[in-house]
Amino acid sequence: MKAWNFTGTHQPFTKVEVEQPTPGPGQILIEMKAAGLCHSDVGILEDEKWLDIMDLPAIPGHEIAGVVAAVGDDATGYSVGDRVCVWPMGTAGKAYGYGRGGGWGEYVVADIDDVIRIPEGVPFELAAAATDAGMTSFGAVMEAGKLQKGEKVGIIGFGGLGQIGARIAFLSGAEVYVAEVNEAVWDAALATGATKVVKDIRELSDIGLTLIVDFAGFGTTTAGAIEAVGYEGRVVQIGMGKLEATINTYPLIMKHVNLVGNTGGSREAIAKVLEFMASGDISPAIELTDFDGIPEGIDRLHRGEVRGRLVALY
Amino acid sequence: MKAWNFTGTHQPFTKVEVEQPTPGPGQILIEMKAAGLCHSDVGILEDEKWLDIMDLPAIPGHEIAGVVAAVGDDATGYSVGDRVCVWPMGTAGKAYGYGRGGGWGEYVVADIDDVIRIPEGVPFELAAAATDAGMTSFGAVMEAGKLQKGEKVGIIGFGGLGQIGARIAFLSGAEVYVAEVNEAVWDAALATGATKVVKDIRELSDIGLTLIVDFAGFGTTTAGAIEAVGYEGRVVQIGMGKLEATINTYPLIMKHVNLVGNTGGSREAIAKVLEFMASGDISPAIELTDFDGIPEGIDRLHRGEVRGRLVALY
Repeated sequence: MKAWNFTGTHQPFTKVEVEQPTPGPGQILIEMKAAGLCHSDVGILEDEKWLDIMDLPAIPGHEIAGVVAAVGDDATGYSVGDRVCVWPMGTAGKAYGYGRGGGWGEYVVADIDDVIRIPEGVPFELAAAATDAGMTSFGAVMEAGKLQKGEKVGIIGFGGLGQIGARIAFLSGAEVYVAEVNEAVWDAALATGATKVVKDIRELSDIGLTLIVDFAGFGTTTAGAIEAVGYEGRVVQIGMGKLEATINTYPLIMKHVNLVGNTGGSREAIAKVLEFMASGDISPAIELTDFDGIPEGIDRLHRGEVRGRLVALY
Repeated sequence: MKAWNFTGTHQPFTKVEVEQPTPGPGQILIEMKAAGLCHSDVGILEDEKWLDIMDLPAIPGHEIAGVVAAVGDDATGYSVGDRVCVWPMGTAGKAYGYGRGGGWGEYVVADIDDVIRIPEGVPFELAAAATDAGMTSFGAVMEAGKLQKGEKVGIIGFGGLGQIGARIAFLSGAEVYVAEVNEAVWDAALATGATKVVKDIRELSDIGLTLIVDFAGFGTTTAGAIEAVGYEGRVVQIGMGKLEATINTYPLIMKHVNLVGNTGGSREAIAKVLEFMASGDISPAIELTDFDGIPEGIDRLHRGEVRGRLVALY
């Protein structure tokens, strides 16, 4: 089968012909239909730290959606032709596209414990976006953030993840406030159901926010969230715009603020996001490319030219 | 009755004659036997921010131990002569010595929901120390820190609170590691049951600490704790040595670290500390003064001349 190959940091992805993988016991073979392109895929080209969790050469691609092409022994519950996507973190402790083969080939093998059925009406490209952008947004707001209905929640950064996070919070019964420096997206933020949009989270200090999720992560946003959140408030840190934050520990201590870092989310998070997609409640912007367009797509992501989630349709 | 009076920031405490308070329904009158002197009492002289929670003029003193001198209506469970101490935070939402009268007078009124019986064998000066230093250390390690038996815990700062915190952690079945810059107290740290003492918490990064409590709070200690703690580790921030910390958000996010600020502790925390004192398991160093020595004691605290907890015996 054809696949894109990653051999090391600063090395271009190369198209190779490799043997089609075979599903072992408890596994299925998926014929790829859509694979997401993510900023982390830019990361592996740029930053050696990713090599720690990779087994080279590797087929990248951790946003996987397709149809079941073969079923291994004891892999009950799925049949050839079923539309499925994959929890990228991997129950076996190895992430797809990192420690094990990913979705940038024509076929990929997945453990059935990692597989999620795609509901009717959800196209493959949306399902692919659900597996990382959707999972991470849901994981931040609902799992790490433990959002309860009726809470007042602040969302910092209305980008690819922030917009899904804001929408999930609204659909979950929260009163949503968005802090976003780019006024061009304020109308879109209000359209998700947000009560108010401001430039700086500190402007919301009198609201009594119980939860703030920082999808931007520019250091000042973390510090601002600690200032703005209410007594015993939670701040979830997701964004890594800048990897250093100078925080004021006085409000952290006096208000008993809980700052928690998070990545990813559970398999159930993806299933929930897919339900929201099936009902039409969440429809993130998607930009399409194809299998051969993957390296150019990664370049465009790197240059900040992509609006919405970039997905390759095979 | 005689009392020390606080009229405002930068004003000296003055000895005044005021009317003895009368216990209302659900309250008791306590004849003071021992009152602790705390760095927060230095704080009210120096920093206007404390005025926000104070009702002036105020009788300071939030570490209260004495005997029941009178019992109000419906104040069941206590009799004249009972040895008691007081939960300083106050169930009525007003802290003793701040929003309501404290222990630097000959008598003080307390709500019975705030009262804790002093076990036999625990002298008043130790009971006074249990109400803040003890409560805050227990609150940090066991309540905010949620320490479980068998955990590996790091204690940063082996000062007045840190030494109690380390001992509580050890007595609760944890494997305790102490980070303390002052080598003069390393032997004392090992004597609490600590496995190892180091200068910088970062030296313990390979231990897999699941909980770190920062009693020092010098910014670099918060940052070091986030670096050193293990996956999904908790960092409890108590110390306010410096009110700013520059933290690396990358390990915070990737390790899903939970940084939580905390002050004080519950009424039950004091009761637990008193039990440890009654069995002899916790015996913090106490330095004694008397009622008239309170202002000078505060000056000595301010100049850093006090070893252990300073308590005025009446």
